[in-house]
Amino acid sequence: MNNRTLLTKRVDFSASHRYWNPKWSAERNKKVFGKCSNKYGHGHNYSLEVTIEGDVDPDTGMIINLYDLKPIFDDVLKDFDHKHLNEDNPYFLDMIPTTENIARVLWNIIGEKLQANSNCRLYRIRVYETPDLFVDYWLE
Amino acid sequence: MNNRTLLTKRVDFSASHRYWNPKWSAERNKKVFGKCSNKYGHGHNYSLEVTIEGDVDPDTGMIINLYDLKPIFDDVLKDFDHKHLNEDNPYFLDMIPTTENIARVLWNIIGEKLQANSNCRLYRIRVYETPDLFVDYWLE
Amino acid sequence: MNNRTLLTKRVDFSASHRYWNPKWSAERNKKVFGKCSNKYGHGHNYSLEVTIEGDVDPDTGMIINLYDLKPIFDDVLKDFDHKHLNEDNPYFLDMIPTTENIARVLWNIIGEKLQANSNCRLYRIRVYETPDLFVDYWLE
Amino acid sequence: MNNRTLLTKRVDFSASHRYWNPKWSAERNKKVFGKCSNKYGHGHNYSLEVTIEGDVDPDTGMIINLYDLKPIFDDVLKDFDHKHLNEDNPYFLDMIPTTENIARVLWNIIGEKLQANSNCRLYRIRVYETPDLFVDYWLE
Amino acid sequence: MNNRTLLTKRVDFSASHRYWNPKWSAERNKKVFGKCSNKYGHGHNYSLEVTIEGDVDPDTGMIINLYDLKPIFDDVLKDFDHKHLNEDNPYFLDMIPTTENIARVLWNIIGEKLQANSNCRLYRIRVYETPDLFVDYWLE
Amino acid sequence: MNNRTLLTKRVDFSASHRYWNPKWSAERNKKVFGKCSNKYGHGHNYSLEVTIEGDVDPDTGMIINLYDLKPIFDDVLKDFDHKHLNEDNPYFLDMIPTTENIARVLWNIIGEKLQANSNCRLYRIRVYETPDLFVDYWLE
Repeated sequence: MNNRTLLTKRVDFSASHRYWNPKWSAERNKKVFGKCSNKYGHGHNYSLEVTIEGDVDPDTGMIINLYDLKPIFDDVLKDFDHKHLNEDNPYFLDMIPTTENIARVLWNIIGEKLQANSNCRLYRIRVYETPDLFVDYWLE
Repeated sequence: MNNRTLLTKRVDFSASHRYWNPKWSAERNKKVFGKCSNKYGHGHNYSLEVTIEGDVDPDTGMIINLYDLKPIFDDVLKDFDHKHLNEDNPYFLDMIPTTENIARVLWNIIGEKLQANSNCRLYRIRVYETPDLFVDYWLE
Repeated sequence: MNNRTLLTKRVDFSASHRYWNPKWSAERNKKVFGKCSNKYGHGHNYSLEVTIEGDVDPDTGMIINLYDLKPIFDDVLKDFDHKHLNEDNPYFLDMIPTTENIARVLWNIIGEKLQANSNCRLYRIRVYETPDLFVDYWLE
Repeated sequence: MNNRTLLTKRVDFSASHRYWNPKWSAERNKKVFGKCSNKYGHGHNYSLEVTIEGDVDPDTGMIINLYDLKPIFDDVLKDFDHKHLNEDNPYFLDMIPTTENIARVLWNIIGEKLQANSNCRLYRIRVYETPDLFVDYWLE
Repeated sequence: MNNRTLLTKRVDFSASHRYWNPKWSAERNKKVFGKCSNKYGHGHNYSLEVTIEGDVDPDTGMIINLYDLKPIFDDVLKDFDHKHLNEDNPYFLDMIPTTENIARVLWNIIGEKLQANSNCRLYRIRVYETPDLFVDYWLE
Repeated sequence: MNNRTLLTKRVDFSASHRYWNPKWSAERNKKVFGKCSNKYGHGHNYSLEVTIEGDVDPDTGMIINLYDLKPIFDDVLKDFDHKHLNEDNPYFLDMIPTTENIARVLWNIIGEKLQANSNCRLYRIRVYETPDLFVDYWLE
């Protein structure tokens, strides 16, 4: 039997977004997205849970040291925290910043940084838009 | 590699229930179920987490629109919210409304409605009886 | 200047209740209380916060020892936990078990027991029916 | 001795805001408000706790019926939920939408509506910007 | 009428402590403090809520800028976070680090720093030892 | 298709720990573990989620009766609750009590007791060190 050990670290960020498909009329946007289509956007306290899989280092008892994880998170969140995701973030120029899309974008960015800076692999990304709504994303 | 995207929506409902097996004596019910066998029942603020899997629609950035999910939840919860599950709910006429059974019943009802009204499939049902006790149910 | 030190202990209990005024018609009960008037009742995970004021004992650094508080709570909750408050509790024979009334009843019972068993005084009772709805009660 | 009974109801809303004083230079705004001065704003899941004091009606056991409170909240939140408070809300045309100012504005609006529609009085407004930061406001 | 505006900021710290009165026998310590008297101590994720009262600055809309509050908190928590409060903190050399005493010590330290560095006054200190047990402390 | 039913029960314990590798110099310990290497340790309110898989007994509607689970948890937690894990627990004599190692140890102990006392199998152990950091462990 194989043992599986996953470490999950949660970080929070505050951002705003707007649901708007530029290929659609204002009426259709309003019909599909409701108040999420309001012109100036609205915002959330997002929570991001990053789940990492790896082998436990017998010298440290850890999969990964949080001191090594922190700069990765700080670097990634610079484009998300206190930003309007439609206006002020390079990843949503052509894509609506729904929770589904945010999770996928964060998977790609964090996964790449983890691969470059550690022996661990990204297992799953979870993004909470509110405590009652969240998306899980992973590749398998 | 395949990407997996899951959306989870949590909704709450308040209900009461009683653990009582009519095939057993009062003594045995009391011995097995303790204070959960009290005659008039007791209650909980249940939380239901419905996890849905689907493809992200490139036009909306969503697996499923919450505006489409809401009528399904409203319809299902009519039999659960502010009800005594043993007395006032069609699903527990012959079955004790434990968290395990509630999760299975909700899987069946919600799964059927999702299949009829969306391109998504139900991935998992989680029911919290209290913040410290919950059941996951799925078919695979 | 006087220092004020308050200790608050939270305990949880699960109960069911029904809002029903026997002096009213079924129609009026339904109109005023809505689904809370359903015949068999419904339930909640209540949280009770008991706030106590007293002097800090220099030998223990405590207002009151939790080991002394626990039997008081256990004794009080015997009539509330896993009960239907309308049917199975001595305090609501002639009174609707709303959160307001539950808070007042608990103030009276716990205040009397504290006075008999400690040098502290009850400062405030808070009862959460759900995380989004609570009542504070005190005498001054 | 007088008894005091307070009922608190929490409601949530999602909004965005920007900290920017138009009388100041961009440099000074940046220095004082940091990333909260970012051009397009950012957002939060705000929680609003409305605390109401009143006499318990012996016929209902309630200070105020939640069915009477709900239309007041719905009406008030129309200007806050899914809005950019600087751009899309009538109350912050000349005022920075900090948590302190949001609490004062909500006190004024809700207090007036309560006075016109109930026998209760507003006791306190609490606004959470995040779970770790909140403001209380009241008049005395 | 006067308006009152309070800002509360929560910060967390992890510490260990032991309840032990050196004037007492081991038996008495064990009897009074139970497992809290265990030799090597145990620990908690404490949450500290600092509530501040002040006038809202019309230029900023704030009582106090969080950027000014942060260095005060960082400075104070150096003696508490990741410390054994009995062994490794200057304030509990002759005092048992109960939640009551921790709250009073934090009131004194933070109140002094606030007075020296701001126009605000400390209104209340709340310390959570666990989510179910907390102490409020203030001077009046 | 097969149905899967999992029951998860959460229990809390308070403990302290220290990250220290005796094969390393003090400098290296300080460099790798930072303030977690402080001499006297620090502590946490840990939360343990035990997830169990089994068949639902048609007579009880349960996978396992919580009355049968409680003595197992009580027995296990005797070595963890209100303990310094490095000094006062038999499992960490030669192993650093990181969250990863705590999860593995608890898997082994609880899994064995479940096997001896029930028809269920342990599915997963989750240990929260703080609400923002947790480890999942299982064998497959």
